[in-house]
Amino acid sequence: MFRNTNDTIVALATPPGVGAIGVIRLSGSRAIDCINAVFRGNDLTQVDGYTVHFGKIIDGKRVVDEVLVSVFKAPKSYTGEDIAEISCHGSPYILQEVIELLIAQGARVAEPGEFTLRAFLNGKMDLSQAEAVADLIASTSEASHKLAMDQMRGGFKKRIEALREELIHFASMIELELDFGEEDVEFADRGELTRLVNEILKIINELVNSFRYGNVLKHGVYTVIAGRPNAGKSTLLNKLLNEERAIVSEIEGTTRDTIEDVLNIEGLTFRLVDTAGIREATDQIEQKGIERTMDSVLKSSLLIYVYDSARLEAENVQKDLEMLDASRIPHITIANKSDLLNIGPSQVEEHWYMSARDDEDVQDLKSHMFEKVVNEIQTDGDVVVGNLRHLQSLKESKGALERVLNGLDNETPSDLVTMDIREALYQLGLITGEVTTDDLLENIFRNFCIGK
Amino acid sequence: MFRNTNDTIVALATPPGVGAIGVIRLSGSRAIDCINAVFRGNDLTQVDGYTVHFGKIIDGKRVVDEVLVSVFKAPKSYTGEDIAEISCHGSPYILQEVIELLIAQGARVAEPGEFTLRAFLNGKMDLSQAEAVADLIASTSEASHKLAMDQMRGGFKKRIEALREELIHFASMIELELDFGEEDVEFADRGELTRLVNEILKIINELVNSFRYGNVLKHGVYTVIAGRPNAGKSTLLNKLLNEERAIVSEIEGTTRDTIEDVLNIEGLTFRLVDTAGIREATDQIEQKGIERTMDSVLKSSLLIYVYDSARLEAENVQKDLEMLDASRIPHITIANKSDLLNIGPSQVEEHWYMSARDDEDVQDLKSHMFEKVVNEIQTDGDVVVGNLRHLQSLKESKGALERVLNGLDNETPSDLVTMDIREALYQLGLITGEVTTDDLLENIFRNFCIGK
Repeated sequence: MFRNTNDTIVALATPPGVGAIGVIRLSGSRAIDCINAVFRGNDLTQVDGYTVHFGKIIDGKRVVDEVLVSVFKAPKSYTGEDIAEISCHGSPYILQEVIELLIAQGARVAEPGEFTLRAFLNGKMDLSQAEAVADLIASTSEASHKLAMDQMRGGFKKRIEALREELIHFASMIELELDFGEEDVEFADRGELTRLVNEILKIINELVNSFRYGNVLKHGVYTVIAGRPNAGKSTLLNKLLNEERAIVSEIEGTTRDTIEDVLNIEGLTFRLVDTAGIREATDQIEQKGIERTMDSVLKSSLLIYVYDSARLEAENVQKDLEMLDASRIPHITIANKSDLLNIGPSQVEEHWYMSARDDEDVQDLKSHMFEKVVNEIQTDGDVVVGNLRHLQSLKESKGALERVLNGLDNETPSDLVTMDIREALYQLGLITGEVTTDDLLENIFRNFCIGK
Repeated sequence: MFRNTNDTIVALATPPGVGAIGVIRLSGSRAIDCINAVFRGNDLTQVDGYTVHFGKIIDGKRVVDEVLVSVFKAPKSYTGEDIAEISCHGSPYILQEVIELLIAQGARVAEPGEFTLRAFLNGKMDLSQAEAVADLIASTSEASHKLAMDQMRGGFKKRIEALREELIHFASMIELELDFGEEDVEFADRGELTRLVNEILKIINELVNSFRYGNVLKHGVYTVIAGRPNAGKSTLLNKLLNEERAIVSEIEGTTRDTIEDVLNIEGLTFRLVDTAGIREATDQIEQKGIERTMDSVLKSSLLIYVYDSARLEAENVQKDLEMLDASRIPHITIANKSDLLNIGPSQVEEHWYMSARDDEDVQDLKSHMFEKVVNEIQTDGDVVVGNLRHLQSLKESKGALERVLNGLDNETPSDLVTMDIREALYQLGLITGEVTTDDLLENIFRNFCIGK
C-alpha cells in the first residue's frame, strides 16, 4: 500500500532521457529543508512561495549543477504541502546525483501518482479529478484531451454530489424512523422519495449511456471494415490511412488477419480493423477468419460494410448485413466501385455510393464517418463519463436504486430499503472519493507516472 | 545559418515522451507578451522576474491546460532576454498544442542550441562555457561531469584570457613601430617578448598535454585487452564486466571480433575492447584479426596484455609486448592463471600476477587500472582541456608562437612577426569566443539539444 504520507517525497517529474532541462519535484513538510541543505544561493527557508531562485546544488565542495529552484508553500501548492521544483541541466547522470543527494537529506522516492494522491488526500481535488490528471497526461487527441480536461475541471463531480446530497437527506429520514422502532412513524415521504429516486435514475441512465461516447472520445472509435472478398475493403483501408498497410491483391480471401491502425478525423480517433472476407467458409482457416470478423464486429462502435455495387445483388447485401447484426450498431453501407456503374458518389436508401480509389470520395466518407459517430453516440447531457471505474459504480448505484423503487412499491421493510439507499450512496461516493478504500486508491494511482 | 536574433523563440525544453510535466521555454523581447496572450491568471506583463504563476492556457474558450509559468526579465535570465518557462502536464499532445498557440502569437521554433547561443551573444557566458553546457547535459560519468562543470564555471577562460592580454600588448607595440615606418624605432622590447612567448608556450604545452587526460575524462579510457589465444582475455573481460559478453571457449582463436563494453571504475569510464589472440596467422581471416588488434592498440589509452603465466615463456611475453609497441602507452602486463603456479596476486618486475577467475584479484586489478591511468595521464595543471576544437586552436596558436620565436631569433621583419602574433591571438580568441565566425557558431550549436 501507499507509504507514510508524512514522508517528504522526491521524483523526476520530466520524461527520462537527455533534454535541455530535467525537473525534480519534492513534496512534504521537509521539502524546503531538504533542498536548502544542498543549495548554495538564497536561504530557501526564508523565501515566499511562487518564487524562483538561481543557485548551485553542492555535494560537500563539489558543484553538482547550477539550477533554478521554484518554491511553493503549503497549502498553496499542487499537493497542498510544501513543494520545491528543481530545474537542472537535463543529463540523466546529474538528475540521478541530485535525487540521491535529496534522499541523503531524508526524502524518499515517490511512488507512481503519489504527488496527486496527496493532492487528493489534502482536499486539493476529488478522486475523479485526480483520475483526470492521468488521463490528461495520456491524452493523444483533441477528443480525449477535452474529455480529461472537462473531468479535471470538476464537471462530473458537481452532478454526482448534487445527487448524493438529496439521497443522503432521505436516507437520514428513514434511519430516523428506524430509531423510533415500533412506533410506525414516517418522516420520509414515500411518494417524494419515489419521485427523487426516479429522477436520480434518469440522470444516472444518461451518465451510463454517455459512457459509450466517453469511451469513444478517450480510446477512439473501434471501426470494423467488413465485406465479401474483392469488395475493395483493403483498398479503402489503404486510402483512409494513405498508406500501403494491408496487402491488396486480386486473389480472393487475401486478408485473413485483422490489421489495426489509427486514423484521426476532426480530432476524433478511429481505430480501423480490416477483416477476412465474408463468404461460405470452405476450410477451417476461413471459418476461423469469419469467426474473428464477428468478434471484431461485436466490439465495434462503427461498422463499415463494403460491397461491390457492380457485382453483388441487393438480397446478398441484405443477408450480409443481417449476419453482421448491423442494425444493432452505427454502420455505413458502402456501395463501392460506383464508378463502374457510372454513378457518382451519392447516398441511395442508406447505401453510400462511392469509389474507394477516388480521393475525394474517400474524403467525403471521412466526414460521414465522423458525423455518424457523433450523431449516433453523443448524449444530450453536457457531462460525459469516460472512465470504466465510474461506469461500474454508476451501474451498481443504478441497480441499488432500482431495488429501492421495487422495495417502495412492495412495502419492503424500511431497514432493507435503507440498505439499498446506502449502497447507492456508497457507489456514488466511490466516484468522487467521498468514500475510499486503500485498494481503490492503490488501483487508481499505481497507473500514474512517477513524479505526478 | 542562425536566424534572426530579434525573434522570440520557443521550444520544448524537457525530453520528448510522456511524463508528469513538460516544460516549454520562450525567450525574446516578446516572450512575456506571447504567453500572456494565451494565459488566464495574473497579468504576466506586470509581474516581477523570478516569480511563478498558476493559470490556464486557453485557445479561445477552450482550456488547453492548467500550468505554472515562471517569468524572468532581461537581463537577469539564462539568455539575457525576457524568458517564460511554462510547466504543463506532460502529454506530448498538450505540449504540441501549447507550442502551436505560442507560434500563432508570433514566436518561432528555436534552432538547436539557440537559447545558449543567445546567452553567448548577450555576454552571459563565453564560448567555452557555452560548449560546456552541451557537455554537461551529455555527461554520463563523474569524470565527464566534473570536466564539463569546471569548464562551465569558467576555469579555462581565465587562463586563456590572461595569455591573450599580454600578447595583445606586445602586438600593439610592434604595430606602432610599423606605423613609424623607416624610422627604425623599437617600442617592444624583443628580449621581453621572447621571454613572454616562451612563458605562454609553456602554458599552452601544458594545456595541449592535458587534452589526453581531458579526452579520457570526457569519452572514457579506450582500453584494449590483448594476448595469445587461451591466455584468459575473454574470462578477464567477463569478470570485469560481471557478465557473459564475450564467448569463452577452450578452442583457440575463438574471439575474432572486437567487442566493446563500458566499465565504470571510481567515476572514470573504461571502454573495454577484446581482441583476437596474438599468434602466427595461419589464414587470411586470422591475419585480418591481428591487424584489427593493432589498430585497436594504436587508438588505446590503456593496454592490458594478458598471458598464461603457467605456459608462456618470458621471451615470448617480451616479443608480444614489442610487437604491440607497449612501451609507447600506459600498459599493464597480466601474468594470468597465477593460481596454477601457486603464486598469490602480486606484482613482480612490472608483471601483475593474478587469476582472472578470482573475484578479489579482479577487484585489485580495477584499482590498479584506475591508478595507472590517473598517474600516467594526469597533468600538473588544474585546468584540463577536453574539447577537440580547443585542442586544435591551442595547437595552431602554438605553431604561430613558435614561428614568432623563430622570427625573433632570425631578426625577421616586424610585420611578419606581427602576423604570427595576430594568428596566435586569433586562435586563442576562437576558444573563448572573443573571435567568432558564423561557421564556428553554427558548428558548435548545431550539436545542442532543442530547447537549450
